[in-house]
Amino acid sequence: MNIRIISERIEAIHQNQEMGATQLAREAVRLLGEIAEDPEIPISLFPELLAGASRDLARARPSMASIYNAVGSLVAAWLESGGESNAGPARAAVAEAARRWIARQEAAAGVIADHAAEVIGGTVITLSFSSTVLRTLEECWSRGLLEEVIVAESRPLCEGRRTAETLGSRGIPTTLITDAQMGLFAAEARAAVVGADTIRPNGSLTNKSGTLLLALAARRCRVPFYALAETHKIAPNVGPFRTPTLEEKDPRELLAEPLPGVTVRNIYFDLTPARYITGYITDAGVLNRQEVASLAQKAPGAILAAQ
Amino acid sequence: MNIRIISERIEAIHQNQEMGATQLAREAVRLLGEIAEDPEIPISLFPELLAGASRDLARARPSMASIYNAVGSLVAAWLESGGESNAGPARAAVAEAARRWIARQEAAAGVIADHAAEVIGGTVITLSFSSTVLRTLEECWSRGLLEEVIVAESRPLCEGRRTAETLGSRGIPTTLITDAQMGLFAAEARAAVVGADTIRPNGSLTNKSGTLLLALAARRCRVPFYALAETHKIAPNVGPFRTPTLEEKDPRELLAEPLPGVTVRNIYFDLTPARYITGYITDAGVLNRQEVASLAQKAPGAILAAQ
Repeated sequence: MNIRIISERIEAIHQNQEMGATQLAREAVRLLGEIAEDPEIPISLFPELLAGASRDLARARPSMASIYNAVGSLVAAWLESGGESNAGPARAAVAEAARRWIARQEAAAGVIADHAAEVIGGTVITLSFSSTVLRTLEECWSRGLLEEVIVAESRPLCEGRRTAETLGSRGIPTTLITDAQMGLFAAEARAAVVGADTIRPNGSLTNKSGTLLLALAARRCRVPFYALAETHKIAPNVGPFRTPTLEEKDPRELLAEPLPGVTVRNIYFDLTPARYITGYITDAGVLNRQEVASLAQKAPGAILAAQ
Repeated sequence: MNIRIISERIEAIHQNQEMGATQLAREAVRLLGEIAEDPEIPISLFPELLAGASRDLARARPSMASIYNAVGSLVAAWLESGGESNAGPARAAVAEAARRWIARQEAAAGVIADHAAEVIGGTVITLSFSSTVLRTLEECWSRGLLEEVIVAESRPLCEGRRTAETLGSRGIPTTLITDAQMGLFAAEARAAVVGADTIRPNGSLTNKSGTLLLALAARRCRVPFYALAETHKIAPNVGPFRTPTLEEKDPRELLAEPLPGVTVRNIYFDLTPARYITGYITDAGVLNRQEVASLAQKAPGAILAAQ
């Protein structure tokens, strides 16, 4: 591996619009793990490469605390093992921390599905694509808890279609709607569930645009609204996540050709306040906002802000 | 004109997805007026043709009270002039009522724009395409009251693009967003304005899907939410509009190819309760829901329900 390849992989994370925050955090961890394990990278170069890659990864997706926290936990492993003053063993600790992070994440999805099964059932409404939501719905279906899933397509790129297609192919009764119909269809659901790009320390949720509208629609019908998220999505109370960043993408995703005199906006994420969120279903259980605030105090990304 | 041509024109109103309720009501009135004035239609056939066309037009768009009321006002002109027992003059009365209806509508848009200018200004958010909204925004702009218009595209057919394109071409600063971004952008507006397909006697509003979500988003930010509507859109308290009908369209508008195991729903209209509506800006002034209920008692469509 060389700097060009590392840069390309970070750029791919920056550009990626297929994967959710969990998958992208895993890509980041995998990259740092591979750098730590790469015999072609001499130990003398490793500290600088790690520092540079960590910094760039931490900035690659400013709406996604999971990447920030994941990178923070590997940097912590490096520093706790002595860092540059103990470079060989510290490098091995980074590789080991990467393996542990990935194993924990594989397990987290199952744990979240278990907790979700305690509170979710019947007809569920969701939007966009989230690997955590998909896994959870499949688990609820296999336990006989689910009747139907209503999926909003999630313009502009319509990631909701992929969710609907996957659920439909598993035999789960699935209905695909426009985002505009969420107001109508929320009334038919027993629960609304969404993924998360970031959960802020105050419990507000950064997720695909449309999430706030679904939360408002659910609240109006007294349908509980749950965010499904690994705890690594809880942002630290320091650093860049103190104020939310909502990434904006290419306007051509909405409209291939510009219209004269018209500005096209394509803000990918919106922010749902904690008061609209019934609970945060995580690998640490179904949390309330006080528990989220408490976990935010321990978020591993904090170490990056301290540097 | 013959029965085939009349049927085709009614079918065109049934199928039309370009025009709003006001324009389609005008099409219906024009058709009945032309039937009344057509020298090729003998007076002996006229009563039956009028009855048949009125009945079919009244059913053509079950979400649009304007067509129902417009047809009702022409049928009223016929009956008040004696109907079959006085067929010649009664037929002339229908033709005259059609001309008056169209003239009143031309004027109504200007009157609505005048009333709107009393309450609307700054940055305004809207969705879909409404000739009444467009005319009103242009009027507010020409009076120097408007700063910017934010338009949600309104999936599936994105009629909002046409609104944005028209506003942009007039030099009005215009921003086009996905429906999913309405939650974010409502906070930037000083008012939300939408058209209306029907206003029910209880003040609830049938309009393009997404309207309910915009109303919820506006309410959350304490942004006033106005429905712009000619009074002929206020449904009578009798007949088919007692319970709202939300038209459903071809699922291929959302998704060209079906997905296995996935049902696609394309409900074109949603229903926004009166409690989310700040005011109804009509040709009879800026009304509250009590005034809407009072006008519903006099809605001309009632005569069709009585027949």
